[in-house]
Amino acid sequence: MGGDTAIWVNGTRESALDLPDRGLDYGDGLFETLLLRRGNPLFIDTHLQRLQRGLTALGFPAVLERARQELQRAAAGAGDHEWAVLRLTVTRGAGPRGYAPPERAAPRTVVRLTALEYDAGQQGEGVRLGLADIRCSAQPALAGIKHLNRLEQVLAAAQVREQGCEEGVMLDPSGTVVSAVAGNLFYLRDGALHTPALGHCGVAGTRRALLAQRWAPSIGLAVHEDSVAIEDLLAAEEVFYTNAVQGIRPVAHFGRVHWSAHPVAQRLFRCYLADCA
Amino acid sequence: MGGDTAIWVNGTRESALDLPDRGLDYGDGLFETLLLRRGNPLFIDTHLQRLQRGLTALGFPAVLERARQELQRAAAGAGDHEWAVLRLTVTRGAGPRGYAPPERAAPRTVVRLTALEYDAGQQGEGVRLGLADIRCSAQPALAGIKHLNRLEQVLAAAQVREQGCEEGVMLDPSGTVVSAVAGNLFYLRDGALHTPALGHCGVAGTRRALLAQRWAPSIGLAVHEDSVAIEDLLAAEEVFYTNAVQGIRPVAHFGRVHWSAHPVAQRLFRCYLADCA
Repeated sequence: MGGDTAIWVNGTRESALDLPDRGLDYGDGLFETLLLRRGNPLFIDTHLQRLQRGLTALGFPAVLERARQELQRAAAGAGDHEWAVLRLTVTRGAGPRGYAPPERAAPRTVVRLTALEYDAGQQGEGVRLGLADIRCSAQPALAGIKHLNRLEQVLAAAQVREQGCEEGVMLDPSGTVVSAVAGNLFYLRDGALHTPALGHCGVAGTRRALLAQRWAPSIGLAVHEDSVAIEDLLAAEEVFYTNAVQGIRPVAHFGRVHWSAHPVAQRLFRCYLADCA
Repeated sequence: MGGDTAIWVNGTRESALDLPDRGLDYGDGLFETLLLRRGNPLFIDTHLQRLQRGLTALGFPAVLERARQELQRAAAGAGDHEWAVLRLTVTRGAGPRGYAPPERAAPRTVVRLTALEYDAGQQGEGVRLGLADIRCSAQPALAGIKHLNRLEQVLAAAQVREQGCEEGVMLDPSGTVVSAVAGNLFYLRDGALHTPALGHCGVAGTRRALLAQRWAPSIGLAVHEDSVAIEDLLAAEEVFYTNAVQGIRPVAHFGRVHWSAHPVAQRLFRCYLADCA
């Protein structure tokens, strides 16, 4: 890639999106954020499986194979960087005025490649976790998928930054823990991992799925999807979060609690890193 | 305007938006839909007041005067059409990767002008009102403002169309009436108008405000903001909805109820039309 960023629209190098577009008008679309290592989009199948769940939920026509090809083509340009990030956005494309989607939509894709300064060694350092004031609203019809309606996360991220924290906990309207602002939360207690169930809000992260299916079992741990309270995090032996860019990140501070060691998170991170080949 | 649509980006005639843009990435922005009559943007102050509430809620820098100027300039091009629609979109502009907004955002504006076939006489015909399956999620931090996160309305509009209806009722998670998909609902009973309170979801419509402050009082009616149940609509003497494009639209069918006459909605519509000068 030339410079630190490159953008493709519908597979062509462009730096602008034709208007009107329902992705801009209504957030009518989906996205995925993929980590690349030496031009290889990691865990691409897991990303595309979630994308397909979103396409189905929003009633988009089939665009999965096109998305895969555009990701692969864009990724190939990143081979001179050890690490890079690829964001794929799929919108419902143009449409007439009004909320109702066109009966025959022509989705558009935007792919953005960004070089990443990534120090895998640094990932072991625990972060300071804040608490977002804004809640995740409950919406079963959109829970789990990674759609473009992300104002709650935008406002939460600003609040957490105001608190001097790198990440934050988001709660649902009843005060139950949903996730980190940009990732999924896990805690360890009595030899088992727990993560919030996401039936009515939150994003079902790719690393959350891989951790539950692959990395946790590989070190003999089960992952339970539960109703999680703030008190569960505070009483935990370890807390960490997962996302596509950081992988697995331990929490060092939350509320008045300080965790100085994160042996389970570190073991899981090594399993993860071994898979980032 | 040339053709049926014209678009301006940051005040310049363009047909594309520079990427990246947080409006596309996260729905990080706001919009207003204005009705124009002979190039005059109707009730522009009411629209700009709501826009300002949204700008404040999202923590945008001041862009109101710039938005007003761009609307006025775009509107001037529509003078050869009796009616037209102007959509203003304000996004937080470009930004680095990640949810957290840039500390110093440079918002962008997109203005789209569309000619409108509008027959004021036809507005008296009542519509068939459906019931959206998807609920309006409760989010006090975003209630009332017209932000770009509109997937719930997109899915609701598709469901209502499936039902063969022109509009639909949206409920909150507890089953209380919020609004129409693209408008605010009112019902008449015992000589008073009632409309759902919008403290935790919905958009506070410009025509809703004008009807309560101006048109209803002018015919001796008070408007009460209430908790509204489906049963209240079914038992009403009249039901209608308001939005910026249609003004005031009576409901002829909802559930098993048929209203054949809408004398109050018609009187209100005449007040409204007299103000569309």
